[in-house]
Order: sequence, then structure tokens, then C-alpha cells
Amino acid sequence: VTDIKNKHALVGIVMGSASDGEIMSVAKKMLDDFGIPVEMRILSAHRTPDEVTQWASRARESGIKVIIAAAGLAAHLAGVTSAHTILPVIGVPMEGGPLKGLDALLSTVQMPKGTPVATVAIGNPGAINAALLALRILGLGDAELQNKLEDYQRQIAEEVLKSDKELQAKIG
Amino acid sequence: VTDIKNKHALVGIVMGSASDGEIMSVAKKMLDDFGIPVEMRILSAHRTPDEVTQWASRARESGIKVIIAAAGLAAHLAGVTSAHTILPVIGVPMEGGPLKGLDALLSTVQMPKGTPVATVAIGNPGAINAALLALRILGLGDAELQNKLEDYQRQIAEEVLKSDKELQAKIG
Amino acid sequence: VTDIKNKHALVGIVMGSASDGEIMSVAKKMLDDFGIPVEMRILSAHRTPDEVTQWASRARESGIKVIIAAAGLAAHLAGVTSAHTILPVIGVPMEGGPLKGLDALLSTVQMPKGTPVATVAIGNPGAINAALLALRILGLGDAELQNKLEDYQRQIAEEVLKSDKELQAKIG
Amino acid sequence: VTDIKNKHALVGIVMGSASDGEIMSVAKKMLDDFGIPVEMRILSAHRTPDEVTQWASRARESGIKVIIAAAGLAAHLAGVTSAHTILPVIGVPMEGGPLKGLDALLSTVQMPKGTPVATVAIGNPGAINAALLALRILGLGDAELQNKLEDYQRQIAEEVLKSDKELQAKIG
Amino acid sequence: VTDIKNKHALVGIVMGSASDGEIMSVAKKMLDDFGIPVEMRILSAHRTPDEVTQWASRARESGIKVIIAAAGLAAHLAGVTSAHTILPVIGVPMEGGPLKGLDALLSTVQMPKGTPVATVAIGNPGAINAALLALRILGLGDAELQNKLEDYQRQIAEEVLKSDKELQAKIG
Amino acid sequence: VTDIKNKHALVGIVMGSASDGEIMSVAKKMLDDFGIPVEMRILSAHRTPDEVTQWASRARESGIKVIIAAAGLAAHLAGVTSAHTILPVIGVPMEGGPLKGLDALLSTVQMPKGTPVATVAIGNPGAINAALLALRILGLGDAELQNKLEDYQRQIAEEVLKSDKELQAKIG
Amino acid sequence: VTDIKNKHALVGIVMGSASDGEIMSVAKKMLDDFGIPVEMRILSAHRTPDEVTQWASRARESGIKVIIAAAGLAAHLAGVTSAHTILPVIGVPMEGGPLKGLDALLSTVQMPKGTPVATVAIGNPGAINAALLALRILGLGDAELQNKLEDYQRQIAEEVLKSDKELQAKIG
Amino acid sequence: VTDIKNKHALVGIVMGSASDGEIMSVAKKMLDDFGIPVEMRILSAHRTPDEVTQWASRARESGIKVIIAAAGLAAHLAGVTSAHTILPVIGVPMEGGPLKGLDALLSTVQMPKGTPVATVAIGNPGAINAALLALRILGLGDAELQNKLEDYQRQIAEEVLKSDKELQAKIG
Repeated sequence: VTDIKNKHALVGIVMGSASDGEIMSVAKKMLDDFGIPVEMRILSAHRTPDEVTQWASRARESGIKVIIAAAGLAAHLAGVTSAHTILPVIGVPMEGGPLKGLDALLSTVQMPKGTPVATVAIGNPGAINAALLALRILGLGDAELQNKLEDYQRQIAEEVLKSDKELQAKIG
Repeated sequence: VTDIKNKHALVGIVMGSASDGEIMSVAKKMLDDFGIPVEMRILSAHRTPDEVTQWASRARESGIKVIIAAAGLAAHLAGVTSAHTILPVIGVPMEGGPLKGLDALLSTVQMPKGTPVATVAIGNPGAINAALLALRILGLGDAELQNKLEDYQRQIAEEVLKSDKELQAKIG
Repeated sequence: VTDIKNKHALVGIVMGSASDGEIMSVAKKMLDDFGIPVEMRILSAHRTPDEVTQWASRARESGIKVIIAAAGLAAHLAGVTSAHTILPVIGVPMEGGPLKGLDALLSTVQMPKGTPVATVAIGNPGAINAALLALRILGLGDAELQNKLEDYQRQIAEEVLKSDKELQAKIG
Repeated sequence: VTDIKNKHALVGIVMGSASDGEIMSVAKKMLDDFGIPVEMRILSAHRTPDEVTQWASRARESGIKVIIAAAGLAAHLAGVTSAHTILPVIGVPMEGGPLKGLDALLSTVQMPKGTPVATVAIGNPGAINAALLALRILGLGDAELQNKLEDYQRQIAEEVLKSDKELQAKIG
Repeated sequence: VTDIKNKHALVGIVMGSASDGEIMSVAKKMLDDFGIPVEMRILSAHRTPDEVTQWASRARESGIKVIIAAAGLAAHLAGVTSAHTILPVIGVPMEGGPLKGLDALLSTVQMPKGTPVATVAIGNPGAINAALLALRILGLGDAELQNKLEDYQRQIAEEVLKSDKELQAKIG
Repeated sequence: VTDIKNKHALVGIVMGSASDGEIMSVAKKMLDDFGIPVEMRILSAHRTPDEVTQWASRARESGIKVIIAAAGLAAHLAGVTSAHTILPVIGVPMEGGPLKGLDALLSTVQMPKGTPVATVAIGNPGAINAALLALRILGLGDAELQNKLEDYQRQIAEEVLKSDKELQAKIG
Repeated sequence: VTDIKNKHALVGIVMGSASDGEIMSVAKKMLDDFGIPVEMRILSAHRTPDEVTQWASRARESGIKVIIAAAGLAAHLAGVTSAHTILPVIGVPMEGGPLKGLDALLSTVQMPKGTPVATVAIGNPGAINAALLALRILGLGDAELQNKLEDYQRQIAEEVLKSDKELQAKIG
Repeated sequence: VTDIKNKHALVGIVMGSASDGEIMSVAKKMLDDFGIPVEMRILSAHRTPDEVTQWASRARESGIKVIIAAAGLAAHLAGVTSAHTILPVIGVPMEGGPLKGLDALLSTVQMPKGTPVATVAIGNPGAINAALLALRILGLGDAELQNKLEDYQRQIAEEVLKSDKELQAKIG
């Protein structure tokens, strides 16, 4: 039986292929930076369907609160995961293939009624926003985390304002 | 456990929702007309994932040779079915929803390597061609069925030629 | 100042136009059925930008946990709302206009990094799944709600199985 | 007259251009690995229409059971082939050109009723899945082949699980 | 053998299905109005491939100068026709099906090098412009026809100016 | 409070990210060449929503006549800016991301009624045309500027004619 | 020579066909309501190219400040108009035809560098926003008009707030 | 006045920008190879509208029989050319820009009724097929040219068969 490896994990990241690892490690890093323990797995909805089912079914009892599922092409991973849990599932469409992730986006977001998937943008911005969305959800029960999220929001604002300042200096 | 109902069935038609029944009954009717026993089921990849898994896993041992899976929107049914069997699985993207089946088409056809789905056209022509494709597959081991398929091919040709004749009469 | 009207609300539904009311009332009804108090508002990101800002900025302190934002065409409402809060924001792309909601989908889901929007399907299935997603999030801190969600998941499975049973009776 | 070259072939692969050879050789290799004799041909629906017609018309009597047809742009090869046989025809849309195979996909999959084409994904995953689909079809009459397909399915699952293990080692 | 019915025809209109007749009769009517004899046929690239081949191959020797081919979905008719002749072939993508003719457009216009199809707009404006394009081609060898085309161009200009005049009367 | 830096500016260029700077500097350069003072800022609709609001709200009283707003992905910047001013706002969809700016285009152009955005092409030609559009608007109250625009129009015509001449020399 | 009919007009609305009249009369009505004299014309870029050229070339000297051009399908009217003037030209893509205005949108907005077209949304919201954009441009030289635009912006905000109030009363 | 440079030209190739020269020279080369004199010009529908009008208007009286017009983005060149002549006009959509020629394709092919453009594929195959289409049209009045076209058709068939032979040798 495919069990949860990290018994402290609050967020489970599952991806359909090792090739998704580079992009999804950005999501993991953001969760690490916020001090959230993560379970990160490679499990395929099509090649290891039973393992996906087991892992998704056990996530809640193991203490996971939010699942992030990333897949490309006909991306079924997030939907299948959502079908086996009542945890919130975030879907990240991967960019791979000639259609550049449009297929993965529609396969992830156009879920029929009854089985929700919280879909974010294709590829890198989606991976980052999936982590942020998980943090916002976890923040509902964690005031300290909410403070950190407010800090983060201030910080990305300041980065924009700093870019603006540099531009003004350059323009003169 | 979700078992095969029709123990004589050679083709299993599974669809994600009762609303797909009208279009998919056209596929069943064509198989009936060719004398092929059919198992027709409503099972949803998202609402009844375990039943889909059980049904797909048992199809082969029950004698089913070809599976036709029809679903709309983020259509995962054919892919999930294919992941649980080594039978050929034909996917029919349904037309429902604002994107008119483009989402179902991409969700069905853009399968990653390892788990094939034989995809046909969106909606009605797809349902008919799914039945014909199943018949062509079954025909490989059934010379009489191949004769019927040749008759069918002649017959649809004759219908075209009859339309043409009527047009000539009307123009001429 | 635009304030929260329902001081008990746990979910805030905001939509860009009165014409979105019919579809979004389905989301409200589902939340009502699960006993979740809802704040439902019509506020436009383009016609009443200050009111959206105020409402989104005050949602958290008023006790709202999850925001659902629905808009069509160049749908900015969910993104703008997300920019003014650290609550999870769910975006529902509306179907209106000649592009059938494809514009609203891309405007809602393709958020740049830093400001997440949990996007669901275009139109009606999206409205229902937005409510379910909010319930799953709220369920993380509410065991009774999680039980209800498990009941719901069983119930929609049973509806599928009942449809299947009726089909067998009809065929058989 | 264009005849079948490999009189033992069970699968015929036909492609519209020499430039499709690299991708389609992956399909041939998979069939070779499963011990299935293959006829592989370059024949164009537009530049050598008579040869395509002859080859497709003779495939069945020569012992071919399944045809795989690969073409790009306005990809008519699979449809034309299907029109001249009652064998199952699998269409692989090639990725070439500015539209990245979306044109080939729609030209292959949107077949009108009466002439089925079993369409797989654009490009490389499609080529692999075309071979697997052919193997699943051939497996219906070949128990040993079905065993091999089960082995293959286990093997690709194990590859995923191995990737997952490596990831755990790296993270852990 | 499928032969040319109208031995005086200068333009051959071929369509894939009787259901295309209503739209394509607009093209025929325009050619009639210009006094050009027309051969109009229903022949399907998929259901009657041999008849299409014969008809297209014989068109030139029978005196036909231009071929107009109309089909929907995976529209191969114009391409197949062009492969069997060196006459100019005009392709009209039909609007039928859920993708509204986008599939027929790409299947008709994205022809690989070597086999040209002169593609016009989807549906009704395409049917009219196909006739006009045929007339412009025939006009190269027929000064009187060119005069008529100049008259036509003046006439459609006058219709616009008349609409404009009526608008001014209404506004003013 | 985010104020206007260049008190003489007639055109304000705002962009959502420093990475848009290279393309948008082409727009600034054209305005510089026509002698129009420019305020150029980096402000993000999602990361610095309040600053965008303040800047847009103050633009008119500071003397700015036209605003150019450039953003990628779910590009809300132009719409949000337009909601806070009655100045004409020109939106430039940026090309970034896997969908190549189609998302930014639809997010910018498909504005609901009441809040206009003058949208130009994706990326570089859009940046240049945004500057030209601003110049045409400013030219309505500046006869000298109109003369310069006529010169510009003559000059780009001459460049085409010069290319043509070079081609003739090369062919000739 | 096609001349300007309304010698007082500040805005010229030109449309490619009488069938665009219903939608574009909404734009005219808004300009009427703001007291702006309008020249409204039916002139086709393809059927009356010379008249379009003349009208566009004379618009400025006749006192027109802004041109609104509406067309469907391969919509060239706005681009052609812009090529013959240095006035700001607003393009409204019409919804007609099977592609629902996506063709008109791309034909209008994707202008190459040198010839700007200020494109608005497809169909009705685009017609209204074209009028508002023209008013914003005219407002730059007309303080009273700017006051009216501020009133308008307040009024559409109030309409939203009124809808919201009615919703609250109904929810209660 | 922009006149025809090559008084012997039977085909006029016009393109919107010098950057289209490389692709369109392939079309010219094919026409050269068939011995057809060509007029090749760079003229822009937007930057030199009057020159396009003059050139198109004079093409027929100068002896040109067929016009090929190539442009990218919002490609109006073929449509504008067709509006000023009764010669057959072939449109080649160029691939440039982020939308990869989909914009140019729709801007060229979706012509409203009355002004036909014979559209070919995006980019290189389109350029070659435009030349072939012109040759087929010219062949209607030139038996020797028709012979050459038959030779060409045989030759491209032989190239395919040669590729096939080489593949057989390689496979063994």
C-alpha cells in the first residue's frame, strides 16, 4: 500500500512524472520557506493509478491538509486525486507538449460538478501560486502563518516598488 | 464490487453521466445491429472512481474485448479506464459545456505515453465511429463480421451515390 | 465604506454583475445546504473598484474565511480581490459573450506569480465546485463539515449508481 | 501496383513524409520489442494517392491486422487509409508546422460518421501509444502478447515508483 | 466508373454530403447567373473514395476548368480532389459540428507543399466567394465574363452605397 | 501616496513587471522622438494594487493625457487603470508565458461595457502602435504634432518603397 | 467623391455592412446622449474600397476627431481607415459568423507596427466602449465633457450598488 | 503612380514587408522553374495603401493573370488587393508573431462575401502551393504548362516512392 512518507506533512505535492520535478520544486521551496512540512511524490494517474488512489485516500488521516497535483497533457492527476479525498486539491497544469499546456489546463480546470479542483496558471507561475494558495488555506487556522503571508505580500510589493525606483534612476 | 452485468458482452460502453445516454445509445444500436452483445454502464471517473476501477479491471476476464468510454468537459473516463486494463479503449469526447467538447477532446486524446486511448470525433459522429472501430477490432477474429463491415461500407457508399442521383434528377 | 453585511458569513461570494446572479445562486444554495453562512454581493472590479477593494480588504477581519469571485469577459474580479487579501480566493469564469467564457477562464486562471486564484470550470459546474472547494477548505477546521462532505461524496456516487441501475432496467 | 513488402507483417505503419520517420521509428521499435512484425512505409495521401489506396486496400489480404498512419498539417492519410479498408486504423497527428499539430489533430480525429480513425496524441507520445494500442488489439487473439502487455504495464508503473523512490532519497 | 454528367460543365462542384447542398446551391446559383455551366455532385472522400478519384481524374478531359469541393469536420475532399488533378481546386470548409468549421478550415487550408487547395471562408460567404473565384479564373480566358465581373463588383459597391444612403435618410 | 514623478509628462506608461521594460522602452523612445514627455512606471495590478489605484487616479490632475498599460498573462493592469480614470487608456498585451500572449490579449481587450481599454497587438508591434495611438490622440490638440505624424506616415511609406526598390535591383 | 455628410461631426462611425447597424447604433446613441455630433456611415473596405479611402482621408479636414470602425470576419475596415488618416481609429470586431468574432478580433487588433488601431471587445460591449473611448479622447480638450464622463462613471457605479442593494433585500 | 515593373509578368507576387522575402522567394523560384515571368513587389496595405491600390488596379491591364499576396499578423494585403481587381488573388498567411500565423490565416481566409481570396497554408508550404495554384490557373490556357504540371506531380510522387525505397533498404 502506498502510504504517506512524511508523517508531519501538511501539504502533499504529487506530480505525474519526474520531469515535472524541476518546476514543482519551486512550490516545495516556497512551502519550506514558510516552514510548512511537505510530502512530495511522483505518482502517475495513468501508470500507477492504484498508488494515486491509495495515497490520495490516506492523505487526510495522515494529517495532510492540502494537496497540490501537477501533470501535463491530458492531465487527470488532480481530478483523480480530488475524487478520492475531501481535502482541497490544487491542480497545476504543466507546460509540456506541442499545445504548451492548453491541453493540461482544460483537462484540469473543466471538472464536472461534484469534484472540485482549484486550478492555477500553466507552469512556473502556477507552481508558485499553488504553494501560496496552500499557505492561504493553512493560514485560516494559523495566525502566525497569516502574518507571514502579509509580510510576503508586502515584500513582493516592495520588490515592484524597488524595480520602479531603479527604473526612475535609470530614466533620470 | 462493481461487476460486469452482461456476461456475454463483447463490447463495454461506459459513460460518465446519464445525460450522455442519448448520444451513446446510437453506438449501442449500431453494435446491436451487427449482433454484438453490449454491456452499457453509467459510471463516473470522478463521482464513482472505485466502481470505474473495478469495472475496468474485470472487463477482460468477463469476456469484454473492447471498451468505449464517453465523457465530457475534463473527460478523464477513457484514460482512467485504459489505466486499469490492457484491452483497447476507445474514447468519445462529449459536446457538453461552453467549450463545445474541445476540452473533452484534448482531455481524451492528449494521453501521455504508456496509456493509449483511441479517440474519435466529438459527439454523434464519434459515437458512431466508436462502434465501427470496435466492430473492426472484433472483425479481426470473426470473418463473418468482416463481411458485414464490407457490406456496411458498400451500403454507406450507395447512400451517397443515391443522394447524388437524387441531386442530378433535381438539377437535371 | 463598503462593509461586510452578514457578520456571521464564513464565505463571501462576489460577482461582477446582477446577470451572474442566477448561476451563482447555485453556489450559495449549496453553502446554505451545508449550513454555512454566506455574504453574497454584486460588486464590479471595473465599475466599483473602490468598493471591491474595501470589501476584499475587510473580509478577513469580519470573519470570512473563503472568497468566491465570479465574473465574465476580461474577468479581473477574482484577481483584484486576491490582491487585497490573504484569504483563499476562488475564481468562477462566467460563460457570457461570444467567446463562451474562454476569455474569462484565461483572465482568471493565468494569474502571475504572487497572487493566487483557485480557478474552477466555466459557468454552472464551476459555481457548484467553487462552493464545494470552499466547503473542503472550511472542513479542515470543522470535523462535522468533513463528515457532511463525505456524505455528499457518497450521495453523488449513489446518484450515478442509481442512474446506472435505471439504465440496466431499461436495457435489460 | 503498391504491394505489401513484409508478408509476415501484422502491423502496417504508413507515414506521409520521410521527415516523420524519426518519431514513427519509436512506434516501430516498440512493436519490434514485443516481437510483432511490422511493415513500415512512406506513402503520401496527396503526392501518391493511388499508392496509398492500393497499399491500404491490400493490407488485409496480406495479413496485416492493424494500420498506423502518421501525417502532419492537413493530415488526411489516416482518413484516406480507413476509407479503403475495414481494418482498425490508428491516426498519429504529427507536430510539424506553426500550429504545432493542432491542425493535424483536428484533421485526423474529427472524422465524419462511417469512417473511423482511432486518434492518439500529437507527436511522440502518440507514436508510442499507437504502438501500444495496436498491441492491445493484437492481444485480443494472443494470450502471450496480453501477458507481455501486463508486464509492460507493471514495468512502467515500477519506473514511476523508482523515480518516486529516488526523489524521496534526494529530499529525505 | 464515375463520369462527368454535364459534358458542358466548366465548373465542377463536389460536396461530401447531401446536407451541404443548401449552402453550396448558393455557389451554383451564382455560376448559373453568370451563365457558366456547372456539374454539381455529392461524392464523399471517405464513403466513396474511388468515385471521388474517378470524378476528379476525369474532370479535366471532360472540359471542367475549376473544381469547388465542400466538406465539413475532418474535411479531406478538396485535398483528395487536388491530388488527382492539375486543375485549380477551391475548398469550402463547411460549418457543421461543435467546432463550427474550425476543424474543416484547418483540414482544408493547411495542405502540405505540392498539393494546393484555394481555401475560402467557412460556410455561406465561402460558398459565394468560391463561385466568384472560379469566375475570376474563367475570366482570364473570357473577356465578356470579365466585363460581367466588373459589373458585379460595381453592383455590390452600389448596394453598399444604397444602404449608406438609406441610413443617412433614417438618421438625418 | 504614489504620485506622478514627471510633472511635465503627457503620456504615462505603466507596466506590470520589470521584465516588460525592454519592449515598452520602444514605446517610450518613439514618444521621446516626437518630443512628448513621458512618465514611465513599474506598478503591478496584483502586487501593488493600491499604488496602481493612486497613480491612475492622480494621472489626470498631474497633466497626463493618455495612459499606456502593459501586462502579460491574466493582464488586468489596463482594465484596473481605466477603472480609476477618465483618460483614454491603451492596453498592450505582453507575450510572456506558454500561451504566447493570447491570455493577455483576451484579458485586455474583452472589457465589459463601461470601462474602455484601447487594445493594440501583442508585444513589440503593440508597444510601437500604443505610442503612435497616444501621439494621434495628443495630435488632436497640437497641429505641429499632427504634422510630425504625417511626416512619420510618409517616412514609413518611403521605407517600404525603398525596400521594394532594393528588391527590384536585386531581382532585376 | 465620398465626402463627410455631417459637417459638425466630431466622431465618425463607419461600418462594413448594414447588418452591423443595430449594434453600432448603441455607440451612436451614447455619443448622442453626451451631445457629440456623429457621422455614421456604411462603407465596406472590400466592396467600396475607394469610398472608404476618400472618407477616411477627408475625415480630419472636415473636423472629425475620432473614427470608430466596425466590421466582422476578416475585418480590415479599421486597419484600412487607420492607414489613411492620422486620427485615432477605434476598431470594433463584430460577432458574425461561425468563429463568433474571434476572426474579426485578430484581424482588427493584430495590426503590424506603424498603423495603430485601438481595439475594443467583440460586439455589444465593444460598441459601447468604443463610444466611451471616443468621449475620453474628446474630453481631453473639453472640461465639460470630462465632468459628464465622471458623472457617467459614478452612475454606472451606482447602478452596481443598486443591484447589490436589491440583492441584499432579496436575500435578506 | 505605382506601375507594373515587369511588363511580361504573368504572376504578380506582392508582400507586406521585406522580412517576407525569404519565404516568398521560394514561390518565385518555382514560377521561374516553370518559365513564368514574375513581378515581385514589396508593398504594404497599411504603410503604402495607395501604392497597393494602384498596383492592384493596374495589374490586369499590364498582362498579369494571377496575384499572390503575402502578409502576416492582421494580414489585409490579399483582401485589399482582391478589392481592386477581378483577377484571382491568392493569399499566403505569414508565420510571424506570437500567434504563429493563426491571426494572418483568419485575416486572410475569412473574407466576407463578394471579395474572394484563395488562401493557402501558413508560411513555407503555403508559398509553394501559392505558386502551384497560380500555375494550375495559368495552365488552363497553356497545354504545355499543363504537361509540366503533370510532370511535376509525377516527380513529387517519385520522390516519395524513393524515400520509401530508401526506408525499405534501411529497415532491411
